[in-house]
Amino acid sequence: MKIEGKDYRTIWFENNVVKIIDQTKLPHHFVIKDLKTIDDAINAIKVMEVRGAPLIGATAAYGLVLAILKNKDQSFLKNSAKDLINSRPTAINLKWAVDRMMNKLSGVNSDKILELAKSEAKEICEEDIKFCKNIGLNGLKIIEEIYNKKKDTINILTHCNAGWLATIDWGTATSPIYHAHKKGIPVHVWADETRPRNQGANLTSFELNEEGIKNTIIADNTGGILMQRGEVDMCIVGTDRTLANGDVCNKVGTYLKALAAHDNNIPFYVALPSSTIDWNIKDQKDIPIEERNSEELSHMEGIDEDGKIKKIQIYPKKSKAINLAFDVTPAKYVTGLITEKGLCEASTEGLKELFK
Amino acid sequence: MKIEGKDYRTIWFENNVVKIIDQTKLPHHFVIKDLKTIDDAINAIKVMEVRGAPLIGATAAYGLVLAILKNKDQSFLKNSAKDLINSRPTAINLKWAVDRMMNKLSGVNSDKILELAKSEAKEICEEDIKFCKNIGLNGLKIIEEIYNKKKDTINILTHCNAGWLATIDWGTATSPIYHAHKKGIPVHVWADETRPRNQGANLTSFELNEEGIKNTIIADNTGGILMQRGEVDMCIVGTDRTLANGDVCNKVGTYLKALAAHDNNIPFYVALPSSTIDWNIKDQKDIPIEERNSEELSHMEGIDEDGKIKKIQIYPKKSKAINLAFDVTPAKYVTGLITEKGLCEASTEGLKELFK
Repeated sequence: MKIEGKDYRTIWFENNVVKIIDQTKLPHHFVIKDLKTIDDAINAIKVMEVRGAPLIGATAAYGLVLAILKNKDQSFLKNSAKDLINSRPTAINLKWAVDRMMNKLSGVNSDKILELAKSEAKEICEEDIKFCKNIGLNGLKIIEEIYNKKKDTINILTHCNAGWLATIDWGTATSPIYHAHKKGIPVHVWADETRPRNQGANLTSFELNEEGIKNTIIADNTGGILMQRGEVDMCIVGTDRTLANGDVCNKVGTYLKALAAHDNNIPFYVALPSSTIDWNIKDQKDIPIEERNSEELSHMEGIDEDGKIKKIQIYPKKSKAINLAFDVTPAKYVTGLITEKGLCEASTEGLKELFK
Repeated sequence: MKIEGKDYRTIWFENNVVKIIDQTKLPHHFVIKDLKTIDDAINAIKVMEVRGAPLIGATAAYGLVLAILKNKDQSFLKNSAKDLINSRPTAINLKWAVDRMMNKLSGVNSDKILELAKSEAKEICEEDIKFCKNIGLNGLKIIEEIYNKKKDTINILTHCNAGWLATIDWGTATSPIYHAHKKGIPVHVWADETRPRNQGANLTSFELNEEGIKNTIIADNTGGILMQRGEVDMCIVGTDRTLANGDVCNKVGTYLKALAAHDNNIPFYVALPSSTIDWNIKDQKDIPIEERNSEELSHMEGIDEDGKIKKIQIYPKKSKAINLAFDVTPAKYVTGLITEKGLCEASTEGLKELFK
């Protein structure tokens, strides 16, 4: 998708270097960063220069390419895979992508291993783009249905960033929106700010602006009153891990919006590539919920009156804070899942039928 | 209550000047400000140097004292009353306090009018303190009941600031907490940050710190996952306007927490002096919901590394935002109302029985 009128992907490989858009610098600066080593890749995931379940997976895949460039030894590769999986705990794609790479690369001791790794990492990216595009086409049907009744701008609420910046291109939750826009359906997005890291403001609103899609940033507290007033036609969010029973683990706060949508009879959809499905965990209590540094809450970055990036402390000095990054939305509050294969009910049966 | 070990009220009258704690400067600076004219009082309400339904009412009452100090004319008084009522739309106490003052002062053309006004404004403050204390004693019973079962720290979630800084002393939602603490019951407060103005962090956490009560600031998104994990024993919030049917209009985001509490079988209480009850509005759709400047969202104030107050822009330049200040929690999600007269059900019957 576009930034300043030019088409980009979030990650690409060029001259033995992995190129990423450094998302910690957005929206104030657009910086393309080189990842040259496996440690660069692990760090990029940890400090969230890349984020979003599919993009984390792709970065891990290319991380293994960087590992091989340094050392073709299988034990080095295995350790790199382990370090990558441990770099962030909640998104399941990370493990999925590393496992997929290791399936191809384990035991390969020839010089071919580098080419194999490069081609599999590329394949993971290309597949993600195809899947995201299909998610968009499948979700478009829902938007079209609502538009055929309303015949007026469709107001869509989303939380955090499940946009193209969270994937390689198109995004998950945003893909139906981009496809509707391209088809001429008037859409307007309510972008939840998404504290503490404000990805909804910094990334979702930013990328929608760049594609010319109308959007308004709201405090995370605001979705409820907008729904009560009838100013939300549907919600679409992404997911970092979808359980086999349809429960959805996504950015903290998603659950609160799902409750409000349920209370106001507003459809609440979750968009996902099948790589985010965790077929093993049966109970939401077993999902590892990442706790991040509380400084992400107590401090805030922005630009000062001179246009310079500045970090300020916003909380009282004596106060402490806790920063849980995800919550779980029970399947009963999810109207449906939008996947690359089509729509399904958020349930064991729904998922089984689509993916068996 | 205490700031830096010394007892304060939020507002007092001294040498023909109204003294307030300038709450826009907290938590980084503690500043006592003089309001010398009726315009100072109106401005203090508008820019939220004073905020919280009961304190807004008290400030309006003293605003009329300042008006009389300038001009004893009845038409000037009437205009001042009108301007005060229009200074913020949602909190009902503002109108309640002004009406109460005008009941005493309308038609009084003698020199006594100043003494009458001063004494009625003082009476409004003293009554609020008494009411808040009684709210505390009534709410304490609920905390004691939970403590008798749990025998361990009681985790209480609150939203925004319905603390002593929102009243004259004690607070509404915090008063039961202060009373429990004084009685030796171990309490810990989850303070919702409360975007966009962060009153939960800047004021609630600040005042709890100063009283030595354990508390942790959380993003507004976090209450749901904490409730899912069983880490919240009860919620207590304040209200800016309580309808006669028990619906509660409070700081935006309150509704989302009430939904989560309901979904997790956690008691959700609203603490209020009867001055916040609006006996006239029957339908929540008729409540005027204040829309404030979107700069409260897009910009953030804090202290930089040199300890200086700094304002930074946090949103993308091209983005717009909307800032709705309140939402409405339907009575069915409210476990009970804690008032100065006792506890009651959040319903027409419950309120009628207590206040007829």
